[in-house]
Amino acid sequence: MTVTAADVQHAAERISGRVRRTPVLRVSPTLTLKLELLQHVGSFKPRGAFNRMLSAKEQGALSGLGVVTASGGNAGLAVAYAARELGVPARIFVPESAPSTKVARLRTLDADVVQIGTEYAEAYAAAVTASEASGALFVHAYDQPEIVAGQGTLGLELLEQADPFDTVLVAVGGGGLIAGIATALGGRARVVGVEPEVAPTMARALEAGEPVDVQVGGCAADSLGARRLGSIAFDAVRAHGVRSVLVTEEAIVAARNELWTEYRLAVEHGAAVTQAALSSGAYRPEPGERVVMVVCGANTDPSTLG
Amino acid sequence: MTVTAADVQHAAERISGRVRRTPVLRVSPTLTLKLELLQHVGSFKPRGAFNRMLSAKEQGALSGLGVVTASGGNAGLAVAYAARELGVPARIFVPESAPSTKVARLRTLDADVVQIGTEYAEAYAAAVTASEASGALFVHAYDQPEIVAGQGTLGLELLEQADPFDTVLVAVGGGGLIAGIATALGGRARVVGVEPEVAPTMARALEAGEPVDVQVGGCAADSLGARRLGSIAFDAVRAHGVRSVLVTEEAIVAARNELWTEYRLAVEHGAAVTQAALSSGAYRPEPGERVVMVVCGANTDPSTLG
Ligand SMILES: Cc1ncc(COP(=O)(O)O)c(C=O)c1O
Ligand SMILES: Cc1ncc(COP(=O)(O)O)c(C=O)c1O
Repeated sequence: MTVTAADVQHAAERISGRVRRTPVLRVSPTLTLKLELLQHVGSFKPRGAFNRMLSAKEQGALSGLGVVTASGGNAGLAVAYAARELGVPARIFVPESAPSTKVARLRTLDADVVQIGTEYAEAYAAAVTASEASGALFVHAYDQPEIVAGQGTLGLELLEQADPFDTVLVAVGGGGLIAGIATALGGRARVVGVEPEVAPTMARALEAGEPVDVQVGGCAADSLGARRLGSIAFDAVRAHGVRSVLVTEEAIVAARNELWTEYRLAVEHGAAVTQAALSSGAYRPEPGERVVMVVCGANTDPSTLG
Repeated sequence: MTVTAADVQHAAERISGRVRRTPVLRVSPTLTLKLELLQHVGSFKPRGAFNRMLSAKEQGALSGLGVVTASGGNAGLAVAYAARELGVPARIFVPESAPSTKVARLRTLDADVVQIGTEYAEAYAAAVTASEASGALFVHAYDQPEIVAGQGTLGLELLEQADPFDTVLVAVGGGGLIAGIATALGGRARVVGVEPEVAPTMARALEAGEPVDVQVGGCAADSLGARRLGSIAFDAVRAHGVRSVLVTEEAIVAARNELWTEYRLAVEHGAAVTQAALSSGAYRPEPGERVVMVVCGANTDPSTLG
């Protein structure tokens, strides 16, 4: 399945007014931050969630039966938020191990939270089954064309907002965000994916020539812990020559503190990997290379900062 | 002493490249946030500090003797930061009661921190004396024309960045920030100052027809705790018809949590007063009134959030 630049353009029109146009902060002539952590519910995920639901609605496939997803993290929050805004019920499947704070947060967004199984895979299977049995719309966390196109609207905004740039650094989990951005940019800038060493889904997929299951873990697992790159994402990152960079756990933890000290941005670990790539030298820009760093999530416990 | 729109314009040219052009975030058709908490060292204060030091430099009044100020808060951090950037020494006088974290922070910026006296007034007197004795440049926290003009550059940015707006809400301590913004806007928008009920320096000055000493306290005292409005600020707020709004301690605490929950902005109490004015109804915009809220400081302990 391929997502095109036109799909991203349509997504932008569809979700306009539903998501925040998050600002950019130019911190030096060669470094700009895209402050996507200021998005509704603290991450870019509402872009894809709204696009999936609104395009289903256009086709008569979003009904009072609502939506179903599996995610204890930002995707779940985004689906719950978008469903509430669109006035349909949301059922979110999470593993029994999901932290009670996250479950509570989903409930404040009026979602029906179902805790099931010990692993994400079980919650995922239950969500798919529930969707098939009930007729509710299934919303994937990354591997649906409308999700990828929705996340890509962040890339379109960048083209409008930022001064000309050479490179964008993007965190990678299941790959929806980076695939969308690479599609939106269509070669107008180099796209570099950053992953924890201990969750290298894109790196392994590029090596293997197809998405493969990998062991994942580490401090960013709750946002970047997808076990395998999405197939739509794989096609997009291959088509657009996206590169992969890996960062250590120590670099991620240090970068998260740097983002707070240097810019007063309170981010979650998964959103600190791009800063980690620059600070640790895992990605070394050429002299004069103009880099945009996507800062994509703030669902963190602020008491662990500073 | 009067500060003019031309002074603010000159300040903007002078400090260009030294301060961040902080972004705005439009959160609804009638509400925009100016994200000045993303400024260097976490508040707007470097604008004034750089303008004061760079204009002294133009006049040969900034030497290797460096600068002196009195402040354990954002003004001190800004002076230390600007001095380091300009390659001159900074001596910062703070009361003995200054929290060790703040003192440590000033030291990481290479400042020479002198702890003296039990109250801010004593630290202030010692700083003035030290400046006179040593020939180091005295930098006031708010009541110098270059400081007011420097803070006003935030207002010029707003005119360039934001869609047309009717009203700006600004936190008031000694009044440097609001005076600068009112001067920059020159009547192009209504300027409303927000103060804690327990630190009403501008409200009392407007009532009395001149700056008067007031009792100050409360959760925002470390940033909005000046005991009296500056005289330059008083002239400016009178000339530009600035209004005052007071907010309760409870409203400030609640607003600070709202800024985190709603926008993922980790702010100090003094920077939450504008949100408090809107949320508590202390300031009620007319239907359709387009409001800009200045979010001006992030020097907070993030563990107290959420
Ligand atoms: C903050 C944050 N960054 C990055 C990602 C990775 O996004 P994707 O799965 O689309 O690669 C996620 C996914 O949950 C996230 O929450
Ligand atoms: C975060 C913050 N907001 C507002 C103010 C008030 O500024 P002014 O004293 O110029 O009124 C200060 C002063 O320190 C501050 O630090």
